[in-house]
Amino acid sequence: MSTIAVDAMGGDHAPGPEVEGAIAAVRERLADVVLVGDEPRLRELVAKHGGLRPGLTIRHATQVITMEDHPSVAAKSKKDSSMRVAFDLAKKGEVKAVVSAGNSGAFMACALFVMKRAVGVDRPAVITTFPSRGGVCALLDMGLNVDCRPQTLAQFAVLGAVFARLRHKKDKPRVGLLSNGEESSKGTDLTRGAHKLLSAAVEKDFEYVGYVEGRDIFSGAIDVVVTDGFTGNIVLKTAEGVGQFVFDVMRQEVTATRLGKLGASLLRGAFTRLKKRVDYAEEGGAPLVGVDGVAVLCHGSSNAKAIKNAIRVAAQLVDAQLPSAVVQSVARHTALWPNDVGSASQGS
Amino acid sequence: MSTIAVDAMGGDHAPGPEVEGAIAAVRERLADVVLVGDEPRLRELVAKHGGLRPGLTIRHATQVITMEDHPSVAAKSKKDSSMRVAFDLAKKGEVKAVVSAGNSGAFMACALFVMKRAVGVDRPAVITTFPSRGGVCALLDMGLNVDCRPQTLAQFAVLGAVFARLRHKKDKPRVGLLSNGEESSKGTDLTRGAHKLLSAAVEKDFEYVGYVEGRDIFSGAIDVVVTDGFTGNIVLKTAEGVGQFVFDVMRQEVTATRLGKLGASLLRGAFTRLKKRVDYAEEGGAPLVGVDGVAVLCHGSSNAKAIKNAIRVAAQLVDAQLPSAVVQSVARHTALWPNDVGSASQGS
Repeated sequence: MSTIAVDAMGGDHAPGPEVEGAIAAVRERLADVVLVGDEPRLRELVAKHGGLRPGLTIRHATQVITMEDHPSVAAKSKKDSSMRVAFDLAKKGEVKAVVSAGNSGAFMACALFVMKRAVGVDRPAVITTFPSRGGVCALLDMGLNVDCRPQTLAQFAVLGAVFARLRHKKDKPRVGLLSNGEESSKGTDLTRGAHKLLSAAVEKDFEYVGYVEGRDIFSGAIDVVVTDGFTGNIVLKTAEGVGQFVFDVMRQEVTATRLGKLGASLLRGAFTRLKKRVDYAEEGGAPLVGVDGVAVLCHGSSNAKAIKNAIRVAAQLVDAQLPSAVVQSVARHTALWPNDVGSASQGS
Repeated sequence: MSTIAVDAMGGDHAPGPEVEGAIAAVRERLADVVLVGDEPRLRELVAKHGGLRPGLTIRHATQVITMEDHPSVAAKSKKDSSMRVAFDLAKKGEVKAVVSAGNSGAFMACALFVMKRAVGVDRPAVITTFPSRGGVCALLDMGLNVDCRPQTLAQFAVLGAVFARLRHKKDKPRVGLLSNGEESSKGTDLTRGAHKLLSAAVEKDFEYVGYVEGRDIFSGAIDVVVTDGFTGNIVLKTAEGVGQFVFDVMRQEVTATRLGKLGASLLRGAFTRLKKRVDYAEEGGAPLVGVDGVAVLCHGSSNAKAIKNAIRVAAQLVDAQLPSAVVQSVARHTALWPNDVGSASQGS
């Protein structure tokens, strides 16, 4: 079984959810876990939940990277922070992957600084999984790649396709480029450039379907949606906002009348299944794809279930050998980003 | 009462919804309506719904601008199309506003070509109204302003604020700039430039609250969200996609069991109220703000209710004298887009 380091101090409610999620993961034999953080505090919390057990260990770290810390500065200077130590354990080979609900910028910076980019990758990307009619849809980038070039988006298509193959078992993923309309005349200079690159490619282990719109994420017709990190973040936050809004209004309207409350009690099972099908915590984490290792980023407000599921995702990506699959696929698709050799030094 | 031209041939299901919506609007005395399009066909449809009545007239137009037509070419060359004739009626003063569910690019092109920009306006913008916890939130641009400059977004803030004051009765609208995080270090070169312009302004009839995230659209804390047309379109389509997805899954889960069906029957009233509160057709149309006239764009698949409500919005904006309010507010805020005099000739 793979051993996975969990940054136990990073999330908004840390270390409670991290400890409970790790214990659940070990209990369900998803992975062995090293909890990284303030040892006395972690020991006390673990004791409350039955104590250490085979497969669960604690690794002390004296510092914490907070949400206010400057990402790259903290990643380099807070050498004994729980997040940085978790990545160092991966680098040393003591663990196979890192899971963290901490500062997302510092997470990217640690991954780039400690794990380094995978060979041939320009900009690693964070992939979020959305529920869809067909099951799931992977969207990237949700990370810090705000200013992208067409070549960057073309490579995101390859990274997303690798992920969809390994994680979502799609043999030949259908990949779309997010735009403001399906006609190729739509889009920005960036999307039109990427569209040209992706359309020209021939030997591909994914199917490029062209421009897709925001609603296609949920249609089930697309497996991977590619966009820059700015737009990706706005899509994610908008989707969360709409989902939460619809549930809030539903709760208000349903509980407004006595008949409604009775109806709702009969619908408890249906509502639970609905919640489960649209709940982002079910997937648990968003992997950073394109670094030389496995690193899964969780929502800052992750609960224990989200942490546990993120550990599951990390273990699965370790088993599937994500980093070497990325290197192989990127090498096969260099024709997609012509005249771009040696550009991997840009970005941060 | 204001007279409003309805492009009866533009929508996906035209002219049925246009005719029914117009008849409903006249019946409810929201406005007088001129239906523009194929007269024999419109006459036949109107007859089915009780015939012409005071306040409802038909104006023949021999051509139709389709969704496949090139926007600016069609706007200029199809001089006897229902859409172009509707705008010409507004220009001649025979009607006070135009409502259309047709080709959105051609709609913008007709408005710019026939009505022209309002004095001082660089790029007119399409405003969509989202439901929110606080009531509503206006988002712009949802139109064709894909490549924006910081000055463009700064002016969108002014246009959005005018709209929120006139249509949503917000005395001092809270205006946010859509970004991938609230910290001012986030964003792109475009948003950082616009943020700087908006932050520096002093005399304002709106409150600039800084960066906002996708979920803030629905929080009720913000009245106007400003973004470029590319991102705005993706927000709209994502929100529609999530809403539709949640309702579809809910229907599936609720009807999966006999108990669920019983519960759902008790909840019929609550579901209807929920649907009404999150239904985009309730607002009906998205006004193009910044042209010298009132023009309201409807979703291509608009039903009769959406058309009727769009007529209501148009009539209200006519009464509120939107175009002159825009000119006055833009003149008051020229300090927000420095060194930008005479730039109105750009774009199309």
